[in-house]
Amino acid sequence: MSAPDTLFRLAALNTAYALAIDADRLEAWPEFFLESCLYKITTAENHRRGYEAGVIYADSRAMLLDRVTALRRANIYERQAYRHIIGMPSIQVETAEGVTAETPFLVVRTMRDGQMDIFASGLYLDRVRADATGALRFAERLVICDSPRFDTLLAIPL
Amino acid sequence: MSAPDTLFRLAALNTAYALAIDADRLEAWPEFFLESCLYKITTAENHRRGYEAGVIYADSRAMLLDRVTALRRANIYERQAYRHIIGMPSIQVETAEGVTAETPFLVVRTMRDGQMDIFASGLYLDRVRADATGALRFAERLVICDSPRFDTLLAIPL
Amino acid sequence: MSAPDTLFRLAALNTAYALAIDADRLEAWPEFFLESCLYKITTAENHRRGYEAGVIYADSRAMLLDRVTALRRANIYERQAYRHIIGMPSIQVETAEGVTAETPFLVVRTMRDGQMDIFASGLYLDRVRADATGALRFAERLVICDSPRFDTLLAIPL
Repeated sequence: MSAPDTLFRLAALNTAYALAIDADRLEAWPEFFLESCLYKITTAENHRRGYEAGVIYADSRAMLLDRVTALRRANIYERQAYRHIIGMPSIQVETAEGVTAETPFLVVRTMRDGQMDIFASGLYLDRVRADATGALRFAERLVICDSPRFDTLLAIPL
Repeated sequence: MSAPDTLFRLAALNTAYALAIDADRLEAWPEFFLESCLYKITTAENHRRGYEAGVIYADSRAMLLDRVTALRRANIYERQAYRHIIGMPSIQVETAEGVTAETPFLVVRTMRDGQMDIFASGLYLDRVRADATGALRFAERLVICDSPRFDTLLAIPL
Repeated sequence: MSAPDTLFRLAALNTAYALAIDADRLEAWPEFFLESCLYKITTAENHRRGYEAGVIYADSRAMLLDRVTALRRANIYERQAYRHIIGMPSIQVETAEGVTAETPFLVVRTMRDGQMDIFASGLYLDRVRADATGALRFAERLVICDSPRFDTLLAIPL
């Protein structure tokens, strides 16, 4: 792929990913990942220190689906609305195997009473590959949150 | 148009649209629409329920100009500054007739004393067409706001 | 360059610029500028009035490096995290000499205790040129902040 084409496809992937979450189509969220994948939410500080553990950790699409089920049971998600604003990806390495990219993001939360605040900001560290159908999917998405507070990280997929 | 080309043209349209509003060039805002168009601001909740009515509603460029005149008279706009941050569009359907896209947005408001907050976030549901000169314009822009509070939606074009 | 290609390259430049700052790789920041350049932070109000002076002003890469040294000494930066979210550029003029563009930005700040707020929003007014190696660099970056408060503008490069 040419560089502009790759950037375009990554940006389209990110936008579709965010729209699925923000429209509460959580069941579609695992589809953005390969069956064998790594999804992790962690803090910038823990990432810097090389801690492997994440606040949220999943290494398969099945685990991501389990997480959605848990969120549906907890039912926290419906009380507020989220809006991801995702910056343009910075492509790091591109090979026949796929592409790695770093992408800044921001999530705004709106409460039922209209109160809005910044829920999260940070960086996606992604490894993206085309699946058998040619569609781009995440082999790895590390969500590095700027905030050191873990409690706010648990409500929705980032 | 190729897909990357469409995406870039939509992104350029959105950026120019936002710059016109944020630089207080409100009189240029209706020019981003076709003469016969639909512009509507509504809440996510009302949109989900299928309510046709919007907080703001206009179905022609002339009505958009009327709205600008009203805003100039109310003179609310000059007391604060707004900044749109618009995500990359997600192209839904593209035909010879035009393209439909969903695009996340965020608006930050800065008060005279420097206080900044999130004024609005949401989703643009757009139908875009080239006019006779080949320039892209909105045949339809539905602004779906995450917040259920109507009062905050009335200050500027979103 | 074709328009999509230019837009792609500017967006990539902006993303890399923001990642360097937000990852605290401040020493890499001056590298995004030509050796002889103009970098200025000012307020929208002062910019409108034509005031030449900026809150921050540098007209060479060496001056930008001095600024980084001063920031390292002040050591303010490490107590909080910043996240730039940069919109797509609006290309104004493109010639053989380079390209001018206007680009909206937003910076979110996260304090050590997890408190997040909007630190700055505004517009980049850029003049970008390819250097001898073909890499794009800023000949000029004017940072026009929406907020009239100067004190908040002094912590990090915007």
